[in-house]
Amino acid sequence: MNGFFELASRRESCRNFHNRPVEKEKLTACMEAARLAPSACNSQPWTAHIIRNPKLAAEVAATTQAMGMNRFTSQCPAFIVITEDKALLTATVAGKFKSQDFAAIDIGIMAAHIVLMATELGLGSCILGWFDESRIKDLLKIERTRRVRLVIAVGYSADDRLRPKVRKPLEKTSMFID
Amino acid sequence: MNGFFELASRRESCRNFHNRPVEKEKLTACMEAARLAPSACNSQPWTAHIIRNPKLAAEVAATTQAMGMNRFTSQCPAFIVITEDKALLTATVAGKFKSQDFAAIDIGIMAAHIVLMATELGLGSCILGWFDESRIKDLLKIERTRRVRLVIAVGYSADDRLRPKVRKPLEKTSMFID
Repeated sequence: MNGFFELASRRESCRNFHNRPVEKEKLTACMEAARLAPSACNSQPWTAHIIRNPKLAAEVAATTQAMGMNRFTSQCPAFIVITEDKALLTATVAGKFKSQDFAAIDIGIMAAHIVLMATELGLGSCILGWFDESRIKDLLKIERTRRVRLVIAVGYSADDRLRPKVRKPLEKTSMFID
Repeated sequence: MNGFFELASRRESCRNFHNRPVEKEKLTACMEAARLAPSACNSQPWTAHIIRNPKLAAEVAATTQAMGMNRFTSQCPAFIVITEDKALLTATVAGKFKSQDFAAIDIGIMAAHIVLMATELGLGSCILGWFDESRIKDLLKIERTRRVRLVIAVGYSADDRLRPKVRKPLEKTSMFID
């Protein structure tokens, strides 16, 4: 790759997947990159369930489709379902700052590592925050008390043109206090 | 850079900063990389306050120091303080899935972009989730109703040796269902 900015520019939310299977090695590489992510008190409060079985992938896809949303996931050959583990914060930190949702932030950071690594490996991805959590738990035999935080669709894009990114102007979101 | 895995390997939480100032251009580049981050419904629910003024930086550093924690921030010349904006989710998504904290996840993703870009630019960084939120709001004149989510310390490291990363084994956190 040519640099981080270029990699981040190439990462986009893919909504048009090719049905070509994803190599297990590439998904492993994504998880190895995720493993390097920082987390509060290094608690790494996540477990990833990686689905490549076509029948199960179709069932996971269905859990992300509600009210006409996300029909594109039916074409996606692989999913990474991320559950939240109880974060083992130090007692000091947990006691004083319990109102911050560290695990959600930590899972965002590791999800960024997954999709950036996927981009480098030529894969498309889409981070999905909406899904039928109860159905996913049934499907993957995840304990009821555990939280499903994200589903990441991963596969080869059927369209290699990048869409222009629509973002707020930098000066609206970044305030320099010199 | 040699690839994303190598970049992610080089990123570590710096707790030993040199007092050399950080160039504004480098902090701008970090925010430009953050701007490319994905977010739920593309709502980009964040504002970054970037502090380089030495007096103000020392005051921000003090808000991150409680009970003997984080004394190292006093050496850090720059901080990026990230507040959460109200996420503008589509009504469908917000209604059905209000229990997920999308903004926290989104801020995790953009924070990952910031620290990875900083690494590429030769900067050290440390994502801090614990700080005196009320004092930071007073200091930076942030509205009381707005949430401060993260403070990222950014500066040149005083020590260019990387520490080995301590992480859970991959097979404990990544379950392949083939």
